[in-house]
Amino acid sequence: MNLQITAVHIMDFLGVAVFAVSGVLAAGRKHLDWFGVLVIAMVTAVGGGTLRDLLIDRPVFWLIDTSFLWVIIAATLMTMVVVRIRNIPLRALLVADALGLALFAISGARIAETAGYGGIVAVILGTMSGVAGGVLRDMLIAEIPLLLRDGEIYATAALLGIIVYLGLQVAGLERTTAAYFGMAVIAALRFTGIFLGLRMPALRLGESQDKKQG
Amino acid sequence: MNLQITAVHIMDFLGVAVFAVSGVLAAGRKHLDWFGVLVIAMVTAVGGGTLRDLLIDRPVFWLIDTSFLWVIIAATLMTMVVVRIRNIPLRALLVADALGLALFAISGARIAETAGYGGIVAVILGTMSGVAGGVLRDMLIAEIPLLLRDGEIYATAALLGIIVYLGLQVAGLERTTAAYFGMAVIAALRFTGIFLGLRMPALRLGESQDKKQG
Amino acid sequence: MNLQITAVHIMDFLGVAVFAVSGVLAAGRKHLDWFGVLVIAMVTAVGGGTLRDLLIDRPVFWLIDTSFLWVIIAATLMTMVVVRIRNIPLRALLVADALGLALFAISGARIAETAGYGGIVAVILGTMSGVAGGVLRDMLIAEIPLLLRDGEIYATAALLGIIVYLGLQVAGLERTTAAYFGMAVIAALRFTGIFLGLRMPALRLGESQDKKQG
Repeated sequence: MNLQITAVHIMDFLGVAVFAVSGVLAAGRKHLDWFGVLVIAMVTAVGGGTLRDLLIDRPVFWLIDTSFLWVIIAATLMTMVVVRIRNIPLRALLVADALGLALFAISGARIAETAGYGGIVAVILGTMSGVAGGVLRDMLIAEIPLLLRDGEIYATAALLGIIVYLGLQVAGLERTTAAYFGMAVIAALRFTGIFLGLRMPALRLGESQDKKQG
Repeated sequence: MNLQITAVHIMDFLGVAVFAVSGVLAAGRKHLDWFGVLVIAMVTAVGGGTLRDLLIDRPVFWLIDTSFLWVIIAATLMTMVVVRIRNIPLRALLVADALGLALFAISGARIAETAGYGGIVAVILGTMSGVAGGVLRDMLIAEIPLLLRDGEIYATAALLGIIVYLGLQVAGLERTTAAYFGMAVIAALRFTGIFLGLRMPALRLGESQDKKQG
Repeated sequence: MNLQITAVHIMDFLGVAVFAVSGVLAAGRKHLDWFGVLVIAMVTAVGGGTLRDLLIDRPVFWLIDTSFLWVIIAATLMTMVVVRIRNIPLRALLVADALGLALFAISGARIAETAGYGGIVAVILGTMSGVAGGVLRDMLIAEIPLLLRDGEIYATAALLGIIVYLGLQVAGLERTTAAYFGMAVIAALRFTGIFLGLRMPALRLGESQDKKQG
């Protein structure tokens, strides 16, 4: 197995860990059994990266390097233990999700760049990699995905972070430094939403018109 | 990037555009922010073709030719603008969806044929290509997929259109002409449902029996 | 087309048949039209194996051997006929699902082994192959997936069955015999839940804490 440790590899390790934590915190709110929680944590953690790898026909990252699976299992078990001891607020789930979004969005954009794709593919593949795990998690536990909550700054955060990451490289910044800035933008935008309640203006189309008609 | 323009290519261009429009119209009813709407439009537009390409191990169409992405972005932005100016009825969403279904079902069947698969694979891969984008759209915005609405002629329309397309070729018609007829059948069947209220007979199994028992 | 008949091939044939039956029984409860039912049956039947094949970059099993599609169509039509004549209880759906879970979990684990992956990948790929079809089915018909129902022994059953299958091989048992034992464990655990009402202890995290706070 290829165990070459690169910056993208480390981003993916951290990404699966925090997404696994978010999966456990989300699943725990639904009274699942222990292995059901593990399944949700696993799907959340590998969802975005797996979609990314399938789309660009790369070998799936957690099949190439199975230490990802042990990281997920460890993060899941530790979260289960900590959650039983301490009283963890809902915001912990949102913070873990925000970090996963930041890490996978930028690592997805980077992998698209490395594979020779242009800026538009990097933006879209990165955004999809970032949001897919959380969307799968929320669909599986039958919650409205964070991506779709009224005014939640989510896809926008990933998109803007990737644009910052690409823009800083064009401006001459070194790739890894640009990646840190991109991730910081994504996390900062999400945290602003989570802790300060900043919201996006929503599109008002059909429903308000229906009301006029009704 | 391969920019070879074929009939299938054009069908896919039109397909992503109308599915993007349907995605915007559906997402607009849920008060998402602008980039959230773009994500829904993108997933709806590329969903069916991406599933098709992954299944038959072709390179994913919008990674090979990124002009698809610009078509989606343009269709999305134009729809957002038009929707703010004019009062667009719900049926516009259904019509855009019907056209996307017709285009992707037939292009999916054609690609399966070209890849050397037989009639049954063409029917199933075509139907899946046609319905996947819309199903993803409706699942993401937490609506019951059109595919599954009581008596809605949906999968049936795709299936019958593909059978007409294949049958006309067997009967000696030229492939592109047969494709137009197939698409016309799918669109006509959907329009009959949307505008004339034609419904399919539903299967009555478990639930009615439960009532008898209850 | 490769028509080599192996033990895994036979497991997959039986698996698609019973999952198709479960798809029909589930869809029939939602008053879908006949072709909508066929689509649900198809997705349920091919979902797990397709995900498995995409992940390890094998050709998708039902594209290589299209007799799978005819098995699904035959199983679907026969179930539709039988269901109209006889009064089939809800448990029939759960039993069909349990058999599909057992067959695809073990065949998924076997294929992972054959492809040279270690125990952890066999466990996870097998579990995913087993549960994916049923999860897709339940998401499409807008039901809470069996995987996620309160205390339902589901992912756990697949996981334990695969561990038994792998453990018996380590203990020196012949692979096919070990596979029978593994499937028997999965089916037995599901049947215990379905007929005797055995439940898993659920994780109690966020919600109970919310109540304390409330």
